Amino acid sequence: MRRVGVRDMDDLALGAAVLGTGGGGDPHIGKLTAAEAIRRHGDVTLIDLGDLADDDLILPVAMMGAPTVMVEKLPRGDEIVRAAEGLQAYLGRPIRAVTPIEAGGLNSTTPFIVATHLGVPLVDADGMGRAFPELQMVTMTLHGIMATPMAIGDEKGNTAILTTIDNAWAERIARTMTIQMGGVAMIALYAMTGAQARRALVPGTVSLAIHLGRAIRDARARKTDPIAGILRLTGGRRLFKGKIMDVRRRTERGFARGEATIQGLDADNGHEMAIQFQNENLIARRDGEVVATVPDLITVLDAETGEPVTTETLRYGFRVVVVGMPCAEAWRGAAALALVGPRVFGYDVDYSPLQASVPATAR
Amino acid sequence: MRRVGVRDMDDLALGAAVLGTGGGGDPHIGKLTAAEAIRRHGDVTLIDLGDLADDDLILPVAMMGAPTVMVEKLPRGDEIVRAAEGLQAYLGRPIRAVTPIEAGGLNSTTPFIVATHLGVPLVDADGMGRAFPELQMVTMTLHGIMATPMAIGDEKGNTAILTTIDNAWAERIARTMTIQMGGVAMIALYAMTGAQARRALVPGTVSLAIHLGRAIRDARARKTDPIAGILRLTGGRRLFKGKIMDVRRRTERGFARGEATIQGLDADNGHEMAIQFQNENLIARRDGEVVATVPDLITVLDAETGEPVTTETLRYGFRVVVVGMPCAEAWRGAAALALVGPRVFGYDVDYSPLQASVPATAR
Repeated sequence: MRRVGVRDMDDLALGAAVLGTGGGGDPHIGKLTAAEAIRRHGDVTLIDLGDLADDDLILPVAMMGAPTVMVEKLPRGDEIVRAAEGLQAYLGRPIRAVTPIEAGGLNSTTPFIVATHLGVPLVDADGMGRAFPELQMVTMTLHGIMATPMAIGDEKGNTAILTTIDNAWAERIARTMTIQMGGVAMIALYAMTGAQARRALVPGTVSLAIHLGRAIRDARARKTDPIAGILRLTGGRRLFKGKIMDVRRRTERGFARGEATIQGLDADNGHEMAIQFQNENLIARRDGEVVATVPDLITVLDAETGEPVTTETLRYGFRVVVVGMPCAEAWRGAAALALVGPRVFGYDVDYSPLQASVPATAR
Repeated sequence: MRRVGVRDMDDLALGAAVLGTGGGGDPHIGKLTAAEAIRRHGDVTLIDLGDLADDDLILPVAMMGAPTVMVEKLPRGDEIVRAAEGLQAYLGRPIRAVTPIEAGGLNSTTPFIVATHLGVPLVDADGMGRAFPELQMVTMTLHGIMATPMAIGDEKGNTAILTTIDNAWAERIARTMTIQMGGVAMIALYAMTGAQARRALVPGTVSLAIHLGRAIRDARARKTDPIAGILRLTGGRRLFKGKIMDVRRRTERGFARGEATIQGLDADNGHEMAIQFQNENLIARRDGEVVATVPDLITVLDAETGEPVTTETLRYGFRVVVVGMPCAEAWRGAAALALVGPRVFGYDVDYSPLQASVPATAR
C-alpha cells in the first residue's frame, strides 16, 4: 500500500506505454488528465490484490476507441467518473477499488481519475498485463467473469448500461456505440469481487509501469542506455535496431491498423523488420521470419531516449529499437491463445513463446 | 374499456397496416405472435386515456429495425416482454399499462404480447397516429417527454438501458445497436405518467385500426368496395388508381428506401403516380405534382381486396388504389413539421394539408 501522486503520473504513463506495445492511447493525454484530477482531489492509494476482502466490489474502468480519435478529443475526466458511478448505482453496491483494464499510456492513468474523484484505492493489477484492441481480450474472460453489466458513456452525456450474453457481444455492441458516440467512449465493466480479482487479474502491472518509467528517466539523466532497464524489469530482449522506412495505416471499424517496415542499423545492418499492428503491435518479422507474436509484448522505442512509440505516432525516419517482452503467464495456455493468439487477429502464424534473455526482477 | 382477444388481432393488424402507410412491419408476423401470446395468457383489456390516473406509469413498446429484416427474423415474443420488464426494473415502478408507439401492422400488435404476458391493460392510443421511421418522430417529443431511459434487446439475450441527452440521440444510438443486433431489436421507451400520456398521445388509434380492419373484411364478405369504409373512418380520399410499373428499393442505414411508379387505370388512365418511401410512404406525386406529403397518411391498397401493401411488398403488376388520409391534428403545427415534415426526410417540398373528402366518423 502506497500513495501515488501527481509526479508519479509521468513515470506511470511512460512505463505503461512500454507495456502498451504501441496501443493503449496517447500517454500525454492520460497523464495530463489524471494529474489534473489528482491535483484537485488528492493522492491515490495503490493497494495489492492481497489487500482485498473476498466480497469487495472491484471495478475496472477505461476509455474505448481508436487512439487516433482520442488524440483529437481530449477527455475532460468526469465522463469516466460518471460511467463508474452509473454502474455502481445499477449494481446497488459501493465500489471498494478501481483498477485498470489494460496497461497503456492512456488506460493506465484513466482509472486514477476515478480513484481520486471517488476517494477509493486503485488495485495494482490489470486485466491484460499489456494492451489489447478488444474488450473480451482480458484474463477475466478466461475465468468466466462477465464484461457486463457494463456502463458506457460519451462526453456529451449519452450513457448506457449493457448486458450481453458473452464478452464478445459486449465488445461488438460497445464498439458500434463507441463509433456512433464519436469514436471514443468511457467504460466501466467486468465488475468483480475481491476473490475473483485475485484469481483473474495480472498482478503488479501499475507498479511495474511506474518502475519502468522511472528506469527510463534515470537512464536519460545519467546518459546511459534506457533500453537496459526495460529489459531488466520485464525479462525482455532486443529484437531489432533500425530506421523506420515505411508506415501504412488505416482506421477500420474503429481500429487503427497497419504495418511498419524498419531498415536495420548497427548490428542489424542489411536486415529488415516488419511489424504488423492493430492498435497494438502484434507480429514482428525479421527478414520475413516471425520473431515475436501476440500475446508476447512487442514495443518500438526511440533508440536515443527510450520513449515508446505508439502505433499512431510511428513515422518515417525514426531511429528505433524493437523490444520483445514475455507476456503474463496466464496468456500462454490454449484457451488464452484462442482468445488473443495470432490467429485471432487474422495471421496464419503459430504462437511460439518469446524466450526471456534475462530473468525479470519485477514480475 | 373492452376485452380484445385472438380474433381481434386479424382486424387490428389489417387496419393498423392501413394507418402504417406502407411501414410498421409485416402484419402477418405481428398478428401471429400476438395471437399466440393471447392464446396462452388471455385476453387484453383495452382502456382509454381517460381511464388513467395522473401518476400511472405508461410504457410504449415496439420492435425497431428494417421491415425487410423482420420478415426473415420472426420474433418469438418474450424478448419484447423482457425489454419492458428490464425498463420496469430500472425505473423501480410497476407498469400500469402499455401502449403502441406507432400504428402499423407489426407495432400495433406487439404491445399486446407485453400486455397479455404482464397482465396489464393496453391504452387505446399511440405516439404517431400512423407509422414513422425514426424514434424521435412521436408526439411525445413535441411535449418534451424523453425517449430514455430506454430498454433495447435482441432475440439472443443482449440488452441495454440507454440514457441519452435528447430523443434524436436515442434514435441514433439505438439504430446502430439494432443494426449490430442483426437488424431488429425490441424496445421499451418514452416511459410516461398517465397525465403526460393524456396530453401527448394520439387517442383512439388501436380501436380505429380494429374498426378499419373489420370494415375491410365486411366489404370483402359483402363484395362491396373495401376502400369506401377506409375513407369513411379516416376522412381520407382516393388519390389514384393504377398498376405498379416500377419499384426501386435499397436498404440504407437500416431503412428500406425507394420509389414506386404507378400507371393510371380507369379514371386515372393516361396519368402516372410516383410514391417515395423510407419504410413508410412519404410523398405522392400525380404527373409530377405533389398531391400528398408526410405527415399526412399515404397508403397503397390492393384495388380488389383493400389489403394494404407495405413498402417491402410493393411489386410490379399489382393493381392498387392510393389513399390519402389526414394526419392527427398534433402533426400540423410548425414544431411538428420541423420533426416530421417533408424536409426532414430530405424532400424540397412544403407540407400542404390534405383536404378530407368526407368528415371522419371515428377520429
